[in-house]
Amino acid sequence: MFPSNKKKIINDPVYGFISLPGGIIYDLIEHPWFQRLRNIRQLGMAYYVYPGATHTRFQHSLGALHLTKLAIGTLRNKGVEITPEEEEATCIAILLHDLGHGPFSHAMEEIIVNGVKHEELSLLLMRLLNEQFNGKLDLAIDIFTNNYSRKFFHELVSGQIDMDRMDYLRRDSFFTGVIEGSVGSDRIINMLNVVDDTLVIEEKGIYSIEKFLIARRLMYWQVYMHKTVMVAENILTSMFNRAKELVFRSVNLFSTPHLSFFMERDFSLTNIHLADNDLKENIANNFVALNDSDILVAAKYWSVHDDKILSDLSSRLLKRELFAIELQNFPFEDNKVETIEKMVLNSKKIDVADIDYYVSTGEVYNRIYSPEVPDIKILAKNGEVNSILAVSDMFDFNTLRLKKSKNFICYPKECRLN
Amino acid sequence: MFPSNKKKIINDPVYGFISLPGGIIYDLIEHPWFQRLRNIRQLGMAYYVYPGATHTRFQHSLGALHLTKLAIGTLRNKGVEITPEEEEATCIAILLHDLGHGPFSHAMEEIIVNGVKHEELSLLLMRLLNEQFNGKLDLAIDIFTNNYSRKFFHELVSGQIDMDRMDYLRRDSFFTGVIEGSVGSDRIINMLNVVDDTLVIEEKGIYSIEKFLIARRLMYWQVYMHKTVMVAENILTSMFNRAKELVFRSVNLFSTPHLSFFMERDFSLTNIHLADNDLKENIANNFVALNDSDILVAAKYWSVHDDKILSDLSSRLLKRELFAIELQNFPFEDNKVETIEKMVLNSKKIDVADIDYYVSTGEVYNRIYSPEVPDIKILAKNGEVNSILAVSDMFDFNTLRLKKSKNFICYPKECRLN
Amino acid sequence: MFPSNKKKIINDPVYGFISLPGGIIYDLIEHPWFQRLRNIRQLGMAYYVYPGATHTRFQHSLGALHLTKLAIGTLRNKGVEITPEEEEATCIAILLHDLGHGPFSHAMEEIIVNGVKHEELSLLLMRLLNEQFNGKLDLAIDIFTNNYSRKFFHELVSGQIDMDRMDYLRRDSFFTGVIEGSVGSDRIINMLNVVDDTLVIEEKGIYSIEKFLIARRLMYWQVYMHKTVMVAENILTSMFNRAKELVFRSVNLFSTPHLSFFMERDFSLTNIHLADNDLKENIANNFVALNDSDILVAAKYWSVHDDKILSDLSSRLLKRELFAIELQNFPFEDNKVETIEKMVLNSKKIDVADIDYYVSTGEVYNRIYSPEVPDIKILAKNGEVNSILAVSDMFDFNTLRLKKSKNFICYPKECRLN
Amino acid sequence: MFPSNKKKIINDPVYGFISLPGGIIYDLIEHPWFQRLRNIRQLGMAYYVYPGATHTRFQHSLGALHLTKLAIGTLRNKGVEITPEEEEATCIAILLHDLGHGPFSHAMEEIIVNGVKHEELSLLLMRLLNEQFNGKLDLAIDIFTNNYSRKFFHELVSGQIDMDRMDYLRRDSFFTGVIEGSVGSDRIINMLNVVDDTLVIEEKGIYSIEKFLIARRLMYWQVYMHKTVMVAENILTSMFNRAKELVFRSVNLFSTPHLSFFMERDFSLTNIHLADNDLKENIANNFVALNDSDILVAAKYWSVHDDKILSDLSSRLLKRELFAIELQNFPFEDNKVETIEKMVLNSKKIDVADIDYYVSTGEVYNRIYSPEVPDIKILAKNGEVNSILAVSDMFDFNTLRLKKSKNFICYPKECRLN
Repeated sequence: MFPSNKKKIINDPVYGFISLPGGIIYDLIEHPWFQRLRNIRQLGMAYYVYPGATHTRFQHSLGALHLTKLAIGTLRNKGVEITPEEEEATCIAILLHDLGHGPFSHAMEEIIVNGVKHEELSLLLMRLLNEQFNGKLDLAIDIFTNNYSRKFFHELVSGQIDMDRMDYLRRDSFFTGVIEGSVGSDRIINMLNVVDDTLVIEEKGIYSIEKFLIARRLMYWQVYMHKTVMVAENILTSMFNRAKELVFRSVNLFSTPHLSFFMERDFSLTNIHLADNDLKENIANNFVALNDSDILVAAKYWSVHDDKILSDLSSRLLKRELFAIELQNFPFEDNKVETIEKMVLNSKKIDVADIDYYVSTGEVYNRIYSPEVPDIKILAKNGEVNSILAVSDMFDFNTLRLKKSKNFICYPKECRLN
Repeated sequence: MFPSNKKKIINDPVYGFISLPGGIIYDLIEHPWFQRLRNIRQLGMAYYVYPGATHTRFQHSLGALHLTKLAIGTLRNKGVEITPEEEEATCIAILLHDLGHGPFSHAMEEIIVNGVKHEELSLLLMRLLNEQFNGKLDLAIDIFTNNYSRKFFHELVSGQIDMDRMDYLRRDSFFTGVIEGSVGSDRIINMLNVVDDTLVIEEKGIYSIEKFLIARRLMYWQVYMHKTVMVAENILTSMFNRAKELVFRSVNLFSTPHLSFFMERDFSLTNIHLADNDLKENIANNFVALNDSDILVAAKYWSVHDDKILSDLSSRLLKRELFAIELQNFPFEDNKVETIEKMVLNSKKIDVADIDYYVSTGEVYNRIYSPEVPDIKILAKNGEVNSILAVSDMFDFNTLRLKKSKNFICYPKECRLN
Repeated sequence: MFPSNKKKIINDPVYGFISLPGGIIYDLIEHPWFQRLRNIRQLGMAYYVYPGATHTRFQHSLGALHLTKLAIGTLRNKGVEITPEEEEATCIAILLHDLGHGPFSHAMEEIIVNGVKHEELSLLLMRLLNEQFNGKLDLAIDIFTNNYSRKFFHELVSGQIDMDRMDYLRRDSFFTGVIEGSVGSDRIINMLNVVDDTLVIEEKGIYSIEKFLIARRLMYWQVYMHKTVMVAENILTSMFNRAKELVFRSVNLFSTPHLSFFMERDFSLTNIHLADNDLKENIANNFVALNDSDILVAAKYWSVHDDKILSDLSSRLLKRELFAIELQNFPFEDNKVETIEKMVLNSKKIDVADIDYYVSTGEVYNRIYSPEVPDIKILAKNGEVNSILAVSDMFDFNTLRLKKSKNFICYPKECRLN
Repeated sequence: MFPSNKKKIINDPVYGFISLPGGIIYDLIEHPWFQRLRNIRQLGMAYYVYPGATHTRFQHSLGALHLTKLAIGTLRNKGVEITPEEEEATCIAILLHDLGHGPFSHAMEEIIVNGVKHEELSLLLMRLLNEQFNGKLDLAIDIFTNNYSRKFFHELVSGQIDMDRMDYLRRDSFFTGVIEGSVGSDRIINMLNVVDDTLVIEEKGIYSIEKFLIARRLMYWQVYMHKTVMVAENILTSMFNRAKELVFRSVNLFSTPHLSFFMERDFSLTNIHLADNDLKENIANNFVALNDSDILVAAKYWSVHDDKILSDLSSRLLKRELFAIELQNFPFEDNKVETIEKMVLNSKKIDVADIDYYVSTGEVYNRIYSPEVPDIKILAKNGEVNSILAVSDMFDFNTLRLKKSKNFICYPKECRLN
């Protein structure tokens, strides 16, 4: 079959029609590992607050691919030479960048595969796919891991203004209905250029970039860290952790086979890297079998389990009987935390050792502008390239680089103070 | 707690902000039976073709409630007297009208609860809720079942141009990205009026109604009956039926407890009606525990089952390795069907008795204009009310009333003729 | 300067970003004759009813150009060979197709240049431009006049589903806010193909075409022939005709120089064709100097003119004190018309000879499907091409081909019967 | 006729359907002074850059009215008592707030009526309307001029987050296609509340407010102060000023009567205030007869005037042959300005005294946050009200309060340096 026969157009409510390339990209999209993303919600438990937010990693990956193709088209129009191989590899890298997401995406990241980020799992899966595809993903992997000489390809996939962010901000804004979070991806892509193998934004795109940074911040606090979403995800992970503890205590407990695989083991990044090929494949095969439904079904079983904590947490999740949450800019005083914990211990009749399942404190933060990754660079008309920090008169970047953090405490509503 | 404290605004990507009423409607929305709709996809397997179509019955029900409130507001502005009790009851009826949908909505309707339509199950559940709410749903049930004297309330909930259709056409169009299917719900609602307790459309709304009928037809063939969607749903139900057959043959098989309840039993509408209260509650409690994840998890177990047919079908579903489908306006000749069946028997090595799991034929149809339900009525400026059949010069309604049918045959791609 | 330097991206609220080609197309867009379209409203007096409808022929022409480029891209992807010269010529033809529109577009068409359609004037202007551009518009003119051998290029510019209609339906729908009139231009363009040098629609686009036909009809009655729009345009032309009559009677009257040129002369298509080059250029130069503002300013002068009829009509137009209008499916009886005329004569104290300025009757009609122009052709999967009349089971095309007409009578509100 | 008969629904592409109130508001909308706004472009010459931006002050005024009604509804729902009289007066104040705009809105503000802002003219016209309506606009005028005790009504009409800005940012964003400039008016309005007769924003609306401030800044530089727009408006005002100078020099010159009235006189705010009623009415009557078409027609006459400067500037405007512009953050050195002026004098053969018609320098600035007007106030959950300066951790408000200015120089392209 010829690649050209495989060309496909799909409907995307965000961009209208998306043309999918043929060849290996088509085959990767058809691959069951990628198809699995159809059943993984993009925004974890956010659909408990924004009912429309049931969109999936599948759509997001195709959307990011679409924007990447547009960006490459723009760059070529501006005279940046890009070979077909580089184009295909960049498209593969962005297509597969979220392959390592498990059930409910970020909400259970580092929880199901303990402490391992989704990027690491994406890389593991890409390497295994590379074997299946006889090394055809070599360049894509180099770009993904920033080992390719022309750095701007990596920046398109992962950087301050990459096509990943560009898609998820627009898409998450679209499906939640939080329209202020939308970004002008068309305009920003039109302003892209490359200088010295580095991605730059042409000067007149500076307002769009400022807007983009603000939109990210807005989406962060209004959606990703919405307090009810945080509570729902807190209960979700507490439930899972309780189940895992019971497994370690050898309590009999239903779980789907692939989920059990991860509940019975604690992986670290190191031991995944050191693992032999058989184990790696074992991990991969179990991981790619997981999707949101494993958790939702397990929760139903667990909601009638003998363990009171597990059944209570699971039941709350299913019925959406969530915890209360309080947020403030500074840490909660020990005093207050203790008072809450006492009330919970009294009312719930649980063991002191289990208090963390009911009372959690912590800190969430957002940083608009990350100092570690390369700067957003602005290309002036005269050819000069400068950091946006030097050019924008809008932001106090010293402030923007700071983590903005919020402290939270959450606990059962029925134990609310006053 | 006072109702006013319960007022809530939620974000809906289709309409922007939706204000939810307080009081009993708020309590019904919070009820676990309603919350469960968050995990039931509105359009069954359509998300296999339209990746954005992961929206749920939860959103749709709130959307239909929103439009109903707008319609009631419009009618009141035009001098139609509507009591607060009538308003609340109509809102309850539309809110709960889809409560009886099970996993993947229409795709498995009459399959899981064999031969029983979702409306019947909605009614069963509404009656049980009515007990929980001490009879406060009496009027809502009367409206839902068209036993209330002022018929237009029922027409708002279920009729040729009801708020259910108005929402689902707009919403399904929005999430699939098939923008041509959108309907001007605002304009149509603004044109509503009531004459002799019957819903009518003011004359100048006639083009919007014509457009609405066309949009429905377009969505029907382009989305609801899209041939790839039909194939996916065909495999879904074949898989389920195979599993059920194995259960009847006492083959050992995983299934979630609530799903097992229905796999082990064949209900009919009659025996549900005749059931005693305990059985009714038993049915209800099992039903309201089901959602899409039960099927998705079962499919994973079944994909590695010893039964070759079950494992093959389940595996195809998970990997999206779908069947081929052919459509034509007239039935397939026996000749052709037999040829295909022979090829399938040969290549699949299955028993003749099992051929239906792999080769299905049938007829799907759509009728733009249903002759059984009350006509769409048009109110002329001079006060006359006429059927749209008499007024519209656009359609040949004799044609529109006919069922437009298509015959299909579907079977494994690898057995495709020529 | 090289064409590539001229590439330009403009913002269009309907499609987002539009890339304009360089070269001659850029020069044509910059040409004052084309720039003039910025001051000609696309929808005549429709902005008196739909306040948003202030969009112009300038935007529409660029939008139609944009869609034409997309269509050509799609056809090329499907293997239709199109030379760069053919592409450019088709783009020029669509870009300039509305150059011959005068003030308020259709509202004053055949009124200012008496009896001459805008297409004729477009052609006249294109030929003069062709001289300025040294014959570079030869092929564009052949395509525009359907004298080029490959007929599908003409069909893209002017046919049942041309890019002109595709843009104006979407754009007029967008700016009026009549969202039901929108068409899925993306989908239809994706379904285009060429068989035997004729434009065809691939089979699965049939619903979009049906929708397109309905949208056209809806826009026709809801916007283009909206009764208040008809009244406003009726007053506009009555005012102009009265002024012209006064000019012929040598009454002293302000008018802008370019408008006077046309008020003092009655052209016919024949005498334009027979005109020598000097006269042709004279006509052209006066015509391309006209825009909406000539009429708006003249109306202000005329609103204080001594002639009672002219001042009354002009004043009504400026103040939006419009006439009443009645519509019905059959002609008004002489009886009724006479009664109205008598009342008007009495109340207005005008001469019988002038009654037509105050009482107009007539017929407007729309035909969804024109029998004169080539059929919409549907390409089946098996390669067969059939007329949509044979394929669509939706419409009664015998009906659709009929003119749907409405009879109207309009007259001053203060003379309304009963 | 009863007010209820006058209720009207109009289509607005930005908000969908807008219901207009009956009674006096309906009469004011029908009034010729208000209808005149249909022919005044909202964004001056911005349609030379953004072809879609042909929207008018008419739409904007209705849109702002619509948002004001929504805001009042929200406040009432939150228990703020608002009498029907206060509601109507606020609606009138916002409806008429832009009545004092002349041709091309801001582009010719203080130019046509020399040095007088549109707010002053709006007030003048409102007072004259108040006489026509027998004092029924008293309260509206008090609210408009901030003389009413409950200050939040004025803040809705004119303040940091008033309904005027809310509408124009959304509307200008919509029609230009600069989607990043859109604001979440729905969300912000939902967050409004009143404390101590002052408008406040509830705490969780803070991100929307930040987004609103950024959107304003983006629209400012990307649209309102777009450099090509600035050039076009510069030529527009130079042309007008040249014509006015010729009038003062008694050179014979066409101009429409109402335009002549203002060209022959130099009003100041003081002499308008001191004017007797006859003069006031004279000013008003001439002013309300002006719209964009007076300028467009005058430009055509002037483009063939004997005065070379006037004809050149007018012709450039009509043909869109604009000047070059340079922008920088600091003033241009005298040196550079002189060099440019010399080249212009040489090439244009004009008098030194006329150099300003061809070379303009100046400074434009924007301030995101105005220190003079009352702060945006944020209402915390605990009831505390604080300035956004104290609450937002995003902005450096010391910076935001500063004027951001840009220096420009513009001059004929053909005299461009190097």
